[in-house]
Amino acid sequence: MSKETIYTLRVEFGDCDPARIVWFPNFFRWIDAASRDFFVQCGVPPWHETEARLGIIGTPLVDTHAKFIQTASYGDVLRIHTRIAEWRGKSFVQRYRVLRDNPMAEGGNDLIMECDEVRIFAARRDSHGTAIRAVVAPPEIRALCDA
Amino acid sequence: MSKETIYTLRVEFGDCDPARIVWFPNFFRWIDAASRDFFVQCGVPPWHETEARLGIIGTPLVDTHAKFIQTASYGDVLRIHTRIAEWRGKSFVQRYRVLRDNPMAEGGNDLIMECDEVRIFAARRDSHGTAIRAVVAPPEIRALCDA
Amino acid sequence: MSKETIYTLRVEFGDCDPARIVWFPNFFRWIDAASRDFFVQCGVPPWHETEARLGIIGTPLVDTHAKFIQTASYGDVLRIHTRIAEWRGKSFVQRYRVLRDNPMAEGGNDLIMECDEVRIFAARRDSHGTAIRAVVAPPEIRALCDA
Amino acid sequence: MSKETIYTLRVEFGDCDPARIVWFPNFFRWIDAASRDFFVQCGVPPWHETEARLGIIGTPLVDTHAKFIQTASYGDVLRIHTRIAEWRGKSFVQRYRVLRDNPMAEGGNDLIMECDEVRIFAARRDSHGTAIRAVVAPPEIRALCDA
Repeated sequence: MSKETIYTLRVEFGDCDPARIVWFPNFFRWIDAASRDFFVQCGVPPWHETEARLGIIGTPLVDTHAKFIQTASYGDVLRIHTRIAEWRGKSFVQRYRVLRDNPMAEGGNDLIMECDEVRIFAARRDSHGTAIRAVVAPPEIRALCDA
Repeated sequence: MSKETIYTLRVEFGDCDPARIVWFPNFFRWIDAASRDFFVQCGVPPWHETEARLGIIGTPLVDTHAKFIQTASYGDVLRIHTRIAEWRGKSFVQRYRVLRDNPMAEGGNDLIMECDEVRIFAARRDSHGTAIRAVVAPPEIRALCDA
Repeated sequence: MSKETIYTLRVEFGDCDPARIVWFPNFFRWIDAASRDFFVQCGVPPWHETEARLGIIGTPLVDTHAKFIQTASYGDVLRIHTRIAEWRGKSFVQRYRVLRDNPMAEGGNDLIMECDEVRIFAARRDSHGTAIRAVVAPPEIRALCDA
Repeated sequence: MSKETIYTLRVEFGDCDPARIVWFPNFFRWIDAASRDFFVQCGVPPWHETEARLGIIGTPLVDTHAKFIQTASYGDVLRIHTRIAEWRGKSFVQRYRVLRDNPMAEGGNDLIMECDEVRIFAARRDSHGTAIRAVVAPPEIRALCDA
């Protein structure tokens, strides 16, 4: 099992559309921030450092699947619970549950959205150019993420 | 089979992140525009008109699944091919293929991303409040979308 | 003199462009959030309440002038200091100073950006339609904002 | 006098806020695209080429002043007229007029927004690091932009 981190944000007026609810691409903006925040909170160094030592330049997204359960609107406080649900050979599944603070609800919150992403650890193909390749998760990064 | 529409855009500098590639939430911004554009191109009236006549206020998203196949960057021209892949009882699957113009590639383009969305036709639960319910696709809207 | 509020945010990877610095339209996103946050922190009720009691539906922007002094990048913590610099007849000047936490700098921060906005208090022209008109700041809202 | 270019876009649903009008930071998104498009249309090579030959890495923004005259909403077609209003020593003023197509209006359009930006031509301070300095507009770039 991996650690679980929480990334907190408040929905702003400008995040909402004419239906007065969060315009859905903004959820992916926040999830991308929560993804990076997970590694930061786990103690993984910034990618420019891992590049120098391990060749890892980041964790690009290859597949995402999201379910929208309830709508949210401005003023709502959202907490994104993030963890690694599965380590695969050269990829991993990062899982998000977006909860809204709600003192009236059972458990103190509402489930707004769930998302499973497949990401890879990426290294450069060669020292020039922008081509990348997937590599096996370095054991030391994996150790930092595991609970 | 439904009609297929094409929504065209050019990737701008500000759509890209420090890795110099499109920051992925922007793909969902464009796909949302392509979704609405599909209905406009099919001749479906604006939602404020369908609300008055049919009670339909829009097509909110309940589930999305995207695969990222190649990266894109600024200057690229993308064409989003959009259709209804399946009509279900009270929902439908809207399917997107994002292609990049590339005269060098076989077929003249590269496949950048694919996405399947489940959306519903939504009506208000009552005349006050914001609660909505899914309704069966009105035959006249479906007829406009079908090829 | 008005009160001064502080709105805090962390710059995310996706807020930055291929030059690895904040893509400038994002500063206006944060400033818009800081504008609304100022009124919330001052105790002004949400606009849907002020509309019922005072006819005020919000504070639309009519003019903005920003100076970009230093660049910011992801990981930076920014604090937007916000106040009303001037009350005019039917408009007001909202002033922002965007500072970055920097323990090495004199005063503990760097000045990143400054912005002066002219906004109005808006009321509807009539009960139907979307036309608006500027109105004099209601004394009770002004009293809440003043120090 | 410089050339004048036109950058055209259609406002999308997701560009609008709960007031059903364009959320203003989006205007700066489009203006930034129009700025780069101006140089592209004038025949200035991409910045990675000018960097190799002239040391110019781009035209960062140092000051922007915008006036919002009318609101716009989704479905509107906007055309951003762009030119260089003034060449200064190490900076220049890029001027934008955002017009909306409107067959009913005098001249066929409405004036939505005006913006004056001060930008610089930037070169790197040294071969390492991210520090930049303003340089005088290279005569060959200026010649391409002038009418």
